[in-house]
Amino acid sequence: MSILVVGSVAFDAMETPSGRRERCLGGAATYFALAASYFTSVRMIGVVGEDFGAEEEAVLTRRGIDTRGIEHVPGKSFFWRGSYMKNLNEAQTLDTELNVFQSFSPKIPEAYKDTEYLFLANIDPVLQADVRSKMPQVKMVCGDTMNYWIKDHADNLARVLRHLDALLINDGEVKMLAKESNLVLAARKVLAMGPKSLVVKHGEYGATAFFGEHSFAGKHKSGPFRAPALPLDAVVDPTGAGDSFAGGFFGYIASQTALTPAVFRRAMFYGSVMGSFAVERFGTERLQNLDKSEIEDRFALFRQLSHLD
Amino acid sequence: MSILVVGSVAFDAMETPSGRRERCLGGAATYFALAASYFTSVRMIGVVGEDFGAEEEAVLTRRGIDTRGIEHVPGKSFFWRGSYMKNLNEAQTLDTELNVFQSFSPKIPEAYKDTEYLFLANIDPVLQADVRSKMPQVKMVCGDTMNYWIKDHADNLARVLRHLDALLINDGEVKMLAKESNLVLAARKVLAMGPKSLVVKHGEYGATAFFGEHSFAGKHKSGPFRAPALPLDAVVDPTGAGDSFAGGFFGYIASQTALTPAVFRRAMFYGSVMGSFAVERFGTERLQNLDKSEIEDRFALFRQLSHLD
Repeated sequence: MSILVVGSVAFDAMETPSGRRERCLGGAATYFALAASYFTSVRMIGVVGEDFGAEEEAVLTRRGIDTRGIEHVPGKSFFWRGSYMKNLNEAQTLDTELNVFQSFSPKIPEAYKDTEYLFLANIDPVLQADVRSKMPQVKMVCGDTMNYWIKDHADNLARVLRHLDALLINDGEVKMLAKESNLVLAARKVLAMGPKSLVVKHGEYGATAFFGEHSFAGKHKSGPFRAPALPLDAVVDPTGAGDSFAGGFFGYIASQTALTPAVFRRAMFYGSVMGSFAVERFGTERLQNLDKSEIEDRFALFRQLSHLD
Repeated sequence: MSILVVGSVAFDAMETPSGRRERCLGGAATYFALAASYFTSVRMIGVVGEDFGAEEEAVLTRRGIDTRGIEHVPGKSFFWRGSYMKNLNEAQTLDTELNVFQSFSPKIPEAYKDTEYLFLANIDPVLQADVRSKMPQVKMVCGDTMNYWIKDHADNLARVLRHLDALLINDGEVKMLAKESNLVLAARKVLAMGPKSLVVKHGEYGATAFFGEHSFAGKHKSGPFRAPALPLDAVVDPTGAGDSFAGGFFGYIASQTALTPAVFRRAMFYGSVMGSFAVERFGTERLQNLDKSEIEDRFALFRQLSHLD
C-alpha cells in the first residue's frame, strides 16, 4: 500500500574520513522515500527552492516516487553542512540554512487522501500533528523527532506521540525524552506517553524495539526485539542512516497485509539493511541504485549475523 | 571436560546507584569459575591471603569447583574498590591493593595436568604465557586482557595472543590494541596477531565474534556473529559481567564434543546469559544460586529477543 512521508528535502555538504562532498541531495524525506521505494509505492510532501531542478526530481521519479506533494517556492532549499571527522557516530553541524523550509506548511494533495501509511519525519511537532489530523483515514502512523523538539517543544511533541503507532528515535533521545538513563525504564516511560511501540536506534549496535500493550491487534504480544547492525569495515558517510532505516522498516510494513510481531521483526531487519546500504556511499548515492536481490542477500547476511542456526 | 581458570581471587567493595557493599568475594577467576560451573567441572589457580577463609572457600566448593590450585599465603588478598555512580557501563577504580597478588606465581597442581580447556583471565601476560607453556596438552585456550597490558606490555601480550583460540576483550580494548577506530578493521588486525577468533564485548549492546581462517577444524567457516545483551530495567552491579560472560561462553564450549560455528554461537548466547545474571545482584551473589532451568529459560529469552521467528 502507499506510504506518505512528510519531511525535509535538502542539499547537504559533508566531510567524513572518506572524503567530502559540497552538494548532495538529502533531507530526511528523501532518504526515507528512496529506502521505502524498494518495498512499496511512496508519496512525498516537502518544500524545495529554485535550486531543486529536473536532475533532483529525476532521482526521486526514477524510483517511482510520487513527488506531486513537493512544493516549489522562490528561494533556496534547506541546506545543511556537517562533519564526521571527530566522530563517525555523531554529526557535528557546521551550518544550517533553513531557507524555504523556514515557512514550510505541508499541503496534502487531493490524490494523497487515500494514503494508509504515514511517516512523520523529523519536523516541528506542530506540523506533524497538523498533517496527522488532516489524514483521518491512515491505518498506521510512525514518526521521528530529535533533541531540539524534545528539549524545547515538549508539549507539542506530546500531542503527536499520542497518535503514533511507532516512534523511531535514538538512544540519547529516548533517555532525554523520558528523563531516565536506563534504556528499559526510559522505553517504558515513553510508551506511557502514547506511542504503541518504540524503535530505539543504537547506531553501529543496531536497534531495539519495545512494545506497548496495544502494539498489535488481537492476541499478538511481544517482548523486546533487538536487530543487529552490520559490522562494516568502511562507513563512508553516516548521513541519513536513521531515515533510511525508517524507510526500510516502514516500507516493508506497508507492503504486508497485517502488522504482526513477525512482520515487525522482519521490518526491523529491513530497516537495518537499508541503513547499512546508505552509509556505504556519500549522500543517497547507494540508495538510488539497488536491486531487490542485493537487498535480499543482505537480509540473509543479517540473519546469519544474528541467528543461532 | 574440565576447564581451568588462572586469575585473580579478590575482595571487592563497590558503590552503584543501587547501593554499596564493603566486602564481596570477587576477582576475575571467581566470577569465571562460578559461571562456568553450571556447564562443566572447573579448576582454579589463584592466590589468596589469610582473609580468605572457610566461608569463601565454601562459595566455590558448593558449586563443585576444584580449589586445590588456590594458594594460601600470609598477608591480605587482592582488594579492589570501585564506583559506578557516574557511569554504570564503566567502573571508576577508587583503590587497588594488590597485596598477595603482587607476587602471584601460578603453580599447576599435578592433578590439573590433564586439563583440556584453559582460560587465562586478565593477569600479567608473562604469567599467562608461562601457564600456557606448562600445559602443552590443552585443546583450547581462551584469554582476556585489559588496557594496562595493551598499553605498556604489548610485546609480552603479543607472545600470548599467538597461542589463543579465542581472545575476549571489549570494544575500547580491541581498538586500542589494533590502533584502529573501526571495529571490523580493528578485529582484522587483532586476528592477524594470532588469536584464531575474537569476541568483542559491547556492554549493554552485546558482543560480536570475528573468526580467522583457522577458527574451526575442517571445512567450517563463519562470518561475524553478534549476540545481544538483555535489555535490563535494573543493573544492580556490573562488576564481573565480562568474566561471567567468559565463564558461560567457555564453560559451554568445554561441555561440547567439538567446536563448530553452531557451538560457538550458542556459547556466545550462554556468555550473555551468565553476564545478565551476574549484574542482577551485588558481587557473585546471583551466580552462586542459579539452577539449570533458569539458565535455559533465559537462553530462550535471548533467542526471542534476537530471532525472526
